[in-house]
Amino acid sequence: MATTETAAGTTLQEQAKRHLWMHFTRMGDYAGAEVPIIVRGEGCYVWDEHGKRFFDGLSALFCSNLGHGRADIAQAGADQAKELDFYSTWSYAHPRAIELATRIASLTPGDLNRVFFTSGGGEAVESALKLARQYHKLTGNPNKTKVIAREVAYHGTPMGALSATGITPFRVPFEPLTPGGCHVPNTNVYRLPEGMPVSALAEAVRERILFEGPETVSAVIMEPVQNAGGTFTPPDGYFQRIREICDEFDVLMISDEVICSWGRLGHWFGAERYDYVPDIITTAKGITGAIAPMGAMIASDRVAAPFMEGHEMFLHGFTFAGHPVAAAIALATLDAYEDERVLEHVRANEHVMREMLESLRDIPIVGDVRGAGYFQSIELVKDRETKESFDDDEAETLLRGFVSGALYERGLICRADDRGDPVIQLSPPLISGPAEFEEVEGVLRPVLEEASRRMRLS
Amino acid sequence: MATTETAAGTTLQEQAKRHLWMHFTRMGDYAGAEVPIIVRGEGCYVWDEHGKRFFDGLSALFCSNLGHGRADIAQAGADQAKELDFYSTWSYAHPRAIELATRIASLTPGDLNRVFFTSGGGEAVESALKLARQYHKLTGNPNKTKVIAREVAYHGTPMGALSATGITPFRVPFEPLTPGGCHVPNTNVYRLPEGMPVSALAEAVRERILFEGPETVSAVIMEPVQNAGGTFTPPDGYFQRIREICDEFDVLMISDEVICSWGRLGHWFGAERYDYVPDIITTAKGITGAIAPMGAMIASDRVAAPFMEGHEMFLHGFTFAGHPVAAAIALATLDAYEDERVLEHVRANEHVMREMLESLRDIPIVGDVRGAGYFQSIELVKDRETKESFDDDEAETLLRGFVSGALYERGLICRADDRGDPVIQLSPPLISGPAEFEEVEGVLRPVLEEASRRMRLS
Repeated sequence: MATTETAAGTTLQEQAKRHLWMHFTRMGDYAGAEVPIIVRGEGCYVWDEHGKRFFDGLSALFCSNLGHGRADIAQAGADQAKELDFYSTWSYAHPRAIELATRIASLTPGDLNRVFFTSGGGEAVESALKLARQYHKLTGNPNKTKVIAREVAYHGTPMGALSATGITPFRVPFEPLTPGGCHVPNTNVYRLPEGMPVSALAEAVRERILFEGPETVSAVIMEPVQNAGGTFTPPDGYFQRIREICDEFDVLMISDEVICSWGRLGHWFGAERYDYVPDIITTAKGITGAIAPMGAMIASDRVAAPFMEGHEMFLHGFTFAGHPVAAAIALATLDAYEDERVLEHVRANEHVMREMLESLRDIPIVGDVRGAGYFQSIELVKDRETKESFDDDEAETLLRGFVSGALYERGLICRADDRGDPVIQLSPPLISGPAEFEEVEGVLRPVLEEASRRMRLS
Repeated sequence: MATTETAAGTTLQEQAKRHLWMHFTRMGDYAGAEVPIIVRGEGCYVWDEHGKRFFDGLSALFCSNLGHGRADIAQAGADQAKELDFYSTWSYAHPRAIELATRIASLTPGDLNRVFFTSGGGEAVESALKLARQYHKLTGNPNKTKVIAREVAYHGTPMGALSATGITPFRVPFEPLTPGGCHVPNTNVYRLPEGMPVSALAEAVRERILFEGPETVSAVIMEPVQNAGGTFTPPDGYFQRIREICDEFDVLMISDEVICSWGRLGHWFGAERYDYVPDIITTAKGITGAIAPMGAMIASDRVAAPFMEGHEMFLHGFTFAGHPVAAAIALATLDAYEDERVLEHVRANEHVMREMLESLRDIPIVGDVRGAGYFQSIELVKDRETKESFDDDEAETLLRGFVSGALYERGLICRADDRGDPVIQLSPPLISGPAEFEEVEGVLRPVLEEASRRMRLS
């Protein structure tokens, strides 16, 4: 199918290069190369236009949690459309949004009982940050507008969310940003400065709140396991201390679970795995197994209360939020997670995935292996003893120039990421298991060994 | 179905009040009243949980352009999912996104050939504003960051879009906003200050650019017909002059067509109706007939060019953008618009809708009738001679207290809006025609006559 002809007489390749603006993509890279066109998916695998098969080691983008090709779940959406294809949640409600909100509330920790739907993760974060600001204005603290987030963390790209996102190159082209984004160190314990106790990581949040002035801080936002930088897990007691600090200063605690909910960490929510109760959870991606765009902001009864009385309202909304078709697909997806015991499967098998990755530590370029659940990373280093990382040119040559392409050539889609120190990220479909992990090892080992050889030669 | 029982033994009403956070909704209003729950849709009608039928005079939220119940289009989505349920447009492409981008580019005016997908209108506007900033930084004008928008205009709720949105109550709870939002008068010619020539409306944009400093202004964003405030149409030559002004100062012209594209004004794009070529079009809503969440930012070749070379990239993205299922639904929707000659139908019948509304001018409370295509409004006034409007209390009593409820009681869903001066907005499915307009008149006339009587008595 390499030269798939279209009605207009041009190929998909030509059309893609001419008309499709791909996201976070250097389009210029395709001036003399093919755009990778994925045409089919089934289970843990996808196929490109040439018929080449790939293991989808990133679940598309941390979201195709049930793998691909779930025609039964997609059909639940089409069936819903026959009944009610669309209605909005602006002043109206409809059964699927109500049922899904109720179902989500039954799964959340604590009193997180109020669901505000969106069409994705960025909108969910945007909604949480806006809610935090209006909440404080309604409760007599109009100056509480800042948000504390972590360095290198990705919280999305709308301008509000971007103020929390801690990846400098994603921010600079769009300055001046929404005021109020404040950043503290993430939980990269692999590179913790010598002599610094792990407890300093949570205390840095308290110090920053005091520095900014507690009366100016509205919220703290953190992923249970931080994706960007390479699956930074929380040290023991970290989130419990963050919860205490938030309570001390009347700061809302937002758990950004766009990736970490719906089984990615073996639980419904990452907060459950790490045993804390935030004020707000943001979610998206796996909520529909990615079969329809959907997200949600879930708020505690306490935070929702001031908006539920008199003439007050949260002055915010999105047309497609709670879409009946997407909600029907989400309900069918949650059924599948339960009926097929997907979360139990992750908890039973995550150690197999981790052990496979740990077994690669004999390769000189492998500096660290870390993560939780089906959400793991390998950090690549120049020197394992000193933990010396690559400079920008080396990262360009090694990651973009060799590793990404070599993994893809051998049929593995994962992410070779250099938004922090260079890492390889794996986030496979939650239905994968030991056989697939062995296959992944069969790709990672030769590619990383070759990358090690290339580094020594350079 | 009034007491629809659920598995948990509670009714949908109870669950909605307990768990669903409706958008732009005073939840407190439902403490002692029923949430309106829409359960079914077919053609131009929807039904609530009590079996009551409503004419969907707002196309849900300006988006169900083909009416409801298009099982054939929804099925195109489910069929697509069997082939490829989801893949992202981050570094990859897939056939439906490519085909849809190509199809859209074939319909846009001028050289708007590059399509960046989103999951809705807010994300499309956010993308356009971010693109404008990065474009100017890439082309040597890093200080060009401000956006000129119009008073009372709605451009969405993410923090970037909100800086363009000109509705004060939607902005205040979320201050401080993203810097750079500047507002000029809209084209409300019904309330043009005495002695002011209509040409002053476009010149106000030029004056504002000069006041801000042309080297600080990145973009102008306007809807072809401004929704909020009540379908303000452009005076003759308005957009041609805006285009000249943008060219004079190297400012990008963004046509926000989230509502005004896909036949709402009888054309593919509002820019076509008013004969101008913007640099960027933002769209959403009707692109899928609302059967799936989707939006897009469409950029001209000129604006896209600096991002298509070397290592440059637009540092922006959304996971679900260009979703294969949504794209398949959009392609089927565009087929329907063409095969069923929907745009021609709107152009042939818009005068019937308009004449019906004009016929209501004998009712004392009807101050103005305005709009274009299937996108019309009636402005309500206290005194037709002086054009005196209602104060906040009167608007509360009359619009929220009487008109909204009375229209709904009589089976008409439309919007009684007081974000500007009080208006009743109608945006019916594009498949509606003279018979439905007669039915709408049968609701509007008695309700507006009663409202007039109530105003005189108060």
